[in-house]
Amino acid sequence: MSAIERQFYHFAFDPASRVVRMALGEKKLDVTEIAVKYWAPTDELLKLNPSGLLPVLVENYEDGQTVVVCENRAILEHLEELPLSPRLWPVPMQERAEARRLVGWFERKFDYEVNALLLYEKMEKRLMGHGAPDINNLRAGRESLRDHLSYFESLLETRNWLAGRSMSYADFVCAAHLSVIDYFDEMNWQKYPHLKTWYMVIKSRPCFRPLLNDILPGVTAAAHYKELDF
Amino acid sequence: MSAIERQFYHFAFDPASRVVRMALGEKKLDVTEIAVKYWAPTDELLKLNPSGLLPVLVENYEDGQTVVVCENRAILEHLEELPLSPRLWPVPMQERAEARRLVGWFERKFDYEVNALLLYEKMEKRLMGHGAPDINNLRAGRESLRDHLSYFESLLETRNWLAGRSMSYADFVCAAHLSVIDYFDEMNWQKYPHLKTWYMVIKSRPCFRPLLNDILPGVTAAAHYKELDF
Repeated sequence: MSAIERQFYHFAFDPASRVVRMALGEKKLDVTEIAVKYWAPTDELLKLNPSGLLPVLVENYEDGQTVVVCENRAILEHLEELPLSPRLWPVPMQERAEARRLVGWFERKFDYEVNALLLYEKMEKRLMGHGAPDINNLRAGRESLRDHLSYFESLLETRNWLAGRSMSYADFVCAAHLSVIDYFDEMNWQKYPHLKTWYMVIKSRPCFRPLLNDILPGVTAAAHYKELDF
Repeated sequence: MSAIERQFYHFAFDPASRVVRMALGEKKLDVTEIAVKYWAPTDELLKLNPSGLLPVLVENYEDGQTVVVCENRAILEHLEELPLSPRLWPVPMQERAEARRLVGWFERKFDYEVNALLLYEKMEKRLMGHGAPDINNLRAGRESLRDHLSYFESLLETRNWLAGRSMSYADFVCAAHLSVIDYFDEMNWQKYPHLKTWYMVIKSRPCFRPLLNDILPGVTAAAHYKELDF
């Protein structure tokens, strides 16, 4: 039984939403996109997900059943349980565990150590009308970003993909996060050659294209943001 | 192929660690427990999980393969992929998505709105030698806890288990969190009759018993903490 209709509640520059857009694209699922300002969740969203967090996927099935799947982790696991290719958790147990560890890394570390500083100052303050960026937070966020990028670079020195031998959700999560940072011109790709090569490969996948066309009103994307060869 | 040996790195009063202990117990898996002070991760732990977060499960298989699974979400999914009963994700898609939503609720909301205030002031400050609890944080944490408990109570008014008709990881995650709060005598069970009945059922499961024997040096558990009928 396959879903006859899907709605996807998301915000274009929310990294968690971007991960799922990539997964939906990779698995060739059509969705009706519904843009939500995550800092001001609508009643419609809160009814679907009482936490108010994005993204949310709603599926309507042939038998009248509706399935509401809330937030990143649940949606990725759910999509993987549907009979769709490609599979985005690696088959070997250790590599699968490694991919899930890295997905968690972004949710529990990167989000707090980088996004809460750098993206908050450069994007959220603007969206929420909270004034000009704080220079100390920007500096701390950039410093933390460098540590994270060095870590990803070290992983990719010995791996084709972030979690190991095959492309996985870990790559999507990492690319989704870095792509938003890249929009704001905060990625110094030249310093991380393995990461740059990896990003070029991900960036050229069809599922990634829609993300490159996103525009945040009032903020011009970095000059190389859309370039596949940067 | 089954694992011949398992090591489990955890901290007895870390809610995320407790969830997995319950899951391991329910699925009748023997593990060697290794206690780690999560606020001072050891080199051994950091080598297994570079984020330093708990819990971590290490499995050694007959063929020499070692599988390292880091943190709550990854471990719960991994255990569910092993051929073990009982199954702890519900079979119906909607209920399974609901269970995963609730697991996320604790990780992304409860942890920040309750634990970061109430447990931080009552437990972490003591563990880390950070001085006496701040009365304003305690008050804010208690207020937030009441909102969360009212929400769980409202769910259990129409459901046998937190996510619906069957026991799931959502129940384990909720019970693990509330059990730590209960140890510190911050649970006013009488105000939440459905939640209380639900907790009595969970509390009487064999997998829950070891948690009731945990002792935090210097802090006496609430008088009813170990009682199955409270």
